[in-house]
Amino acid sequence: MRKLAVVLLSGGLDSATAASWVLSEGWEAMALSIDYGQAHRRELLSAKAVAEALNIPRQSADARFFASLAQHSALTGSALHALPEGRAVEEMANGDIPITYVPLRNSVFLTLAAAALESWALGLIETERCDPRSLKAGIVIAANALDYSGYPDCRPEFYAAAKRMLNLGAKLYTQYGVEIELLTPLIDLSKADIVRLANRLKAPLGLTWSCYAGGEKPCGVCDSCQLRAKGFLEAGLADPALA
Amino acid sequence: MRKLAVVLLSGGLDSATAASWVLSEGWEAMALSIDYGQAHRRELLSAKAVAEALNIPRQSADARFFASLAQHSALTGSALHALPEGRAVEEMANGDIPITYVPLRNSVFLTLAAAALESWALGLIETERCDPRSLKAGIVIAANALDYSGYPDCRPEFYAAAKRMLNLGAKLYTQYGVEIELLTPLIDLSKADIVRLANRLKAPLGLTWSCYAGGEKPCGVCDSCQLRAKGFLEAGLADPALA
Repeated sequence: MRKLAVVLLSGGLDSATAASWVLSEGWEAMALSIDYGQAHRRELLSAKAVAEALNIPRQSADARFFASLAQHSALTGSALHALPEGRAVEEMANGDIPITYVPLRNSVFLTLAAAALESWALGLIETERCDPRSLKAGIVIAANALDYSGYPDCRPEFYAAAKRMLNLGAKLYTQYGVEIELLTPLIDLSKADIVRLANRLKAPLGLTWSCYAGGEKPCGVCDSCQLRAKGFLEAGLADPALA
Repeated sequence: MRKLAVVLLSGGLDSATAASWVLSEGWEAMALSIDYGQAHRRELLSAKAVAEALNIPRQSADARFFASLAQHSALTGSALHALPEGRAVEEMANGDIPITYVPLRNSVFLTLAAAALESWALGLIETERCDPRSLKAGIVIAANALDYSGYPDCRPEFYAAAKRMLNLGAKLYTQYGVEIELLTPLIDLSKADIVRLANRLKAPLGLTWSCYAGGEKPCGVCDSCQLRAKGFLEAGLADPALA
């Protein structure tokens, strides 16, 4: 049985942990990093470093047009919104979707990952290098329903619907019977759990980048920096990226 | 009630007809054209001309990375496959998915259209220019289950699954209750029916481009040229693009 996984690798703590996890589970992995015009472009350098440290090939997708398509967010439409400090956390507490929500981001990312995965798998099947009956295919996304409960595309029911759409639209499933699995290893974990898991798997956390701001060093005050710091604190570990 | 629609406009006969249809149904439309590295790049010029003729704004998305991501197709991976003449039709007759299948193309297109649509709608709602209770939002895709029965992402059950995924991942639906509709006005029509509909709606068919080959004029022999010619023939009309 060959197990092929495309890992969405942003360069952050969560996706580096998810990538380490899928390798530990015996999958062959390829990383996919997506440049969607994010203000925190520093994370793309981290994605490259993490893929190298894990010794997995990486494709990079230039999807910068996505920023103009979906400019209604604090993460891409920098002219429209100043980046909020703590505001996203506050909005989630109110049951609202945070201002850092990027329209359909995870939907776009999953679909691109599925296209890369299908292309990889069809390339093996249709050149007879792999029998579809002994092939598994998966997409790994480091979504988390606990800390990001405010984002609709971080919820389990979204992933169930996504799995159905991606398979019904894919030759890999409809012709060859290989069902694309959506692997969300972090979906129910707290940030402290993720830090502990990363530590156990020896994920290269020192190379990761979480800050939403575009600076040289993590700002320490944005939602993402605060969540990360809280995770390390609760796990009782030091953040190697701050060493 | 404001009705906002994003129309996927390739520049072909079908999408020009679908765009004319949605305008005739009273929607405000914006066109989205996607450059995915298709060999038949001529159609992108047609998309521009069609949008101008219909007097609707158009966004163009540079998704050429998609060609490298999803190179397992005769339509994008020109080094891998020669473009087949009649082969796709033959494969569909055998119940197989044609070689011109592009991995997850319609899934990627729908997701990008949904992101553009959501961005447009949220921009109106969150600046209080529009009450979500008096807003409809739709994506128009000229998919056709009859002539393209071989493509999994042209089937009605795929669109039902896509609608669910796109809404569950969207703030527009999960927070504001505006359900993204997927409008597939051509799904059950024959090519002759589409030509007749276009004729009735005065769609600018003379500006459209259907040929899969990359030439100056339609090749007349590829699957797409043959389907188009057959449609005009059966509808008893002359193709204005050949005038």
